[in-house]
Amino acid sequence: MAKRNAPTLRAVASAAGVDVSTVSRILNSPSEEREKWAGAETVQRILACAAELGYRRNPHAASLRTARTLQVGVVVPRLQDFVLATIFEGIDDAASEHGYAAFVTNSLDDPAQRQSRIHQLLDRRVDGIILADARIEDPILRQLASDGVPFVLTSRASGPYPGAFADDEHGGYLVADHFARLGFHDVAVIAGPTFTSTANLRVDGFRTGLHEHGLTLPEHRLVRTGFDAAAGRAGVEKLLARGPVPSAIFATNDFAAIGAIGGLRDRGLRVPDDVAIVGYNDTPLAENLPVPLTTVRSPMVEMGRTAFRLLEQAMAGRKPASVALEPALIVRESTGVDDDRHRPPRSPAGAGRVSE
Amino acid sequence: MAKRNAPTLRAVASAAGVDVSTVSRILNSPSEEREKWAGAETVQRILACAAELGYRRNPHAASLRTARTLQVGVVVPRLQDFVLATIFEGIDDAASEHGYAAFVTNSLDDPAQRQSRIHQLLDRRVDGIILADARIEDPILRQLASDGVPFVLTSRASGPYPGAFADDEHGGYLVADHFARLGFHDVAVIAGPTFTSTANLRVDGFRTGLHEHGLTLPEHRLVRTGFDAAAGRAGVEKLLARGPVPSAIFATNDFAAIGAIGGLRDRGLRVPDDVAIVGYNDTPLAENLPVPLTTVRSPMVEMGRTAFRLLEQAMAGRKPASVALEPALIVRESTGVDDDRHRPPRSPAGAGRVSE
Repeated sequence: MAKRNAPTLRAVASAAGVDVSTVSRILNSPSEEREKWAGAETVQRILACAAELGYRRNPHAASLRTARTLQVGVVVPRLQDFVLATIFEGIDDAASEHGYAAFVTNSLDDPAQRQSRIHQLLDRRVDGIILADARIEDPILRQLASDGVPFVLTSRASGPYPGAFADDEHGGYLVADHFARLGFHDVAVIAGPTFTSTANLRVDGFRTGLHEHGLTLPEHRLVRTGFDAAAGRAGVEKLLARGPVPSAIFATNDFAAIGAIGGLRDRGLRVPDDVAIVGYNDTPLAENLPVPLTTVRSPMVEMGRTAFRLLEQAMAGRKPASVALEPALIVRESTGVDDDRHRPPRSPAGAGRVSE
Repeated sequence: MAKRNAPTLRAVASAAGVDVSTVSRILNSPSEEREKWAGAETVQRILACAAELGYRRNPHAASLRTARTLQVGVVVPRLQDFVLATIFEGIDDAASEHGYAAFVTNSLDDPAQRQSRIHQLLDRRVDGIILADARIEDPILRQLASDGVPFVLTSRASGPYPGAFADDEHGGYLVADHFARLGFHDVAVIAGPTFTSTANLRVDGFRTGLHEHGLTLPEHRLVRTGFDAAAGRAGVEKLLARGPVPSAIFATNDFAAIGAIGGLRDRGLRVPDDVAIVGYNDTPLAENLPVPLTTVRSPMVEMGRTAFRLLEQAMAGRKPASVALEPALIVRESTGVDDDRHRPPRSPAGAGRVSE
């Protein structure tokens, strides 16, 4: 801040009775290296004076010396999506705890915008990038890798690149198993787009789950669309144009499930009486809908925290190994199961979440 | 990026056949000042060589000379809230267009976290801050002002500080007027917390609107809670514990309205047949709910863009004047009005919005 009068190195040096260069060396060294420059007692005195005066390092000046900016970039499809905002919260918390600042930017899943936002991050000399918008076919990732940019993925997987993910295949499996056990045999899926691993793996796992019960997912029962409410509503219209009403629908996102419920209501169909429905992610809305939504909970905050941890490894020149976190099925009224044993306790009403 | 081999000033100088200092002056000057340092032809040659070589300015080095970092900080209650994520999108787009990068951080409306996140932004030497989490009583704003930190507000107003807001009072007025014209006289409000101007002004405007129709809002018909779905559900419980079922409810947030609809259903009450309901913000979910939600649309992206414009004025040492953007009532089925004249066209299904 140009206008703030931050205490200078000189003020700290004067208070501690030592040379400015000693203060600079000590305040800019990692803690284990400080006693290279002065005795333990002097180091303590300098740190105490700096703390008392409220001295803050200028990270830009420091970064020019170390060639590190202590900034990481995060690229998400869109922060408006609750799932991505929550993953970013995990990244941001972990980054902040480790002395990093996280820049987040929306790629809107648009290749041109994505390219330009990644360039902006590189122009800022970020130390590494977390991408939550990887595509199955993704030349940008190949380019980043060949440029030697430290990066990891989260949410969506792609190729051999390391990242922090949820086990989406297992999540899909859990839904199919739930449907089959409830006796729903004519089932359908409204899935996100084919360039996303999240949608693809949930569908793959769903097929596997059906298969174990001797069931299959015919081609006309799979609709590929988006992840939001409008997409869910459109998905139902497409599904019902192709055949009779299925007994249960798996939407690969809670918001798509909400839109699907709206689309069913447009046709006079009720959930769960006429059609059972399952969403994905267990957003806070799911348990507070008029008909509470059965869904798959994925550990979004933990995914973000883990992604930052992997990025730290990559920034240190190591090769991190991907992590897959466990999802859990949360059973509620939208699959017609009125069994308190399956139902998690409701969160304390209104507690702590204010916003807007 | 430590590992990228960015072309240096020296490479550009050599390609253009001029001195390094000339290249530096020209590439670091605003375009209108470049010809102070060299003739028009030389300037063009240098720019062409820089572009061809893919030269990028190091913003950290540049900022040390100018004492500007070209970074702005944005503090929101929580990005998980669709409204805040959308306002940030507007800020981020405008910042990016003007060569700035925007850091966004969650304060969670927690004073300690807020203080610490603001300090982190100042430590990063941001050129200015946009706060979307101001409180009616807000000592932090007084501190920032007395420290000479350039800042503006958005979403929530507080005291004399400038910002980009929606006219929340008018929004509340529109809802009361809508209820009164539909013949709903026994009405209730589920409002966000008293430390937020957004909730307070929506309630004030609602009272004004009722008053114009000779109606009032009795104390037991106003519940103060949060802005999310759990808060809306809790709000209905509180409301119904205090008296009979009102004919219409205004929830000051779409998500609170969705939770309220759930709470009503728990009591066997249907929307709109038993109780009409109106939300606020016109999030994309509103039109895709099983019962599409009447709500007030506020121009969230424009609010964000305007906030950045005001911050630019503050960073240039000028005193920006606050801007209040106009909201609009969007009538849908949740107030029982089945009138196509009031209904906006539905957005193209699933178009362009993918995410996750």
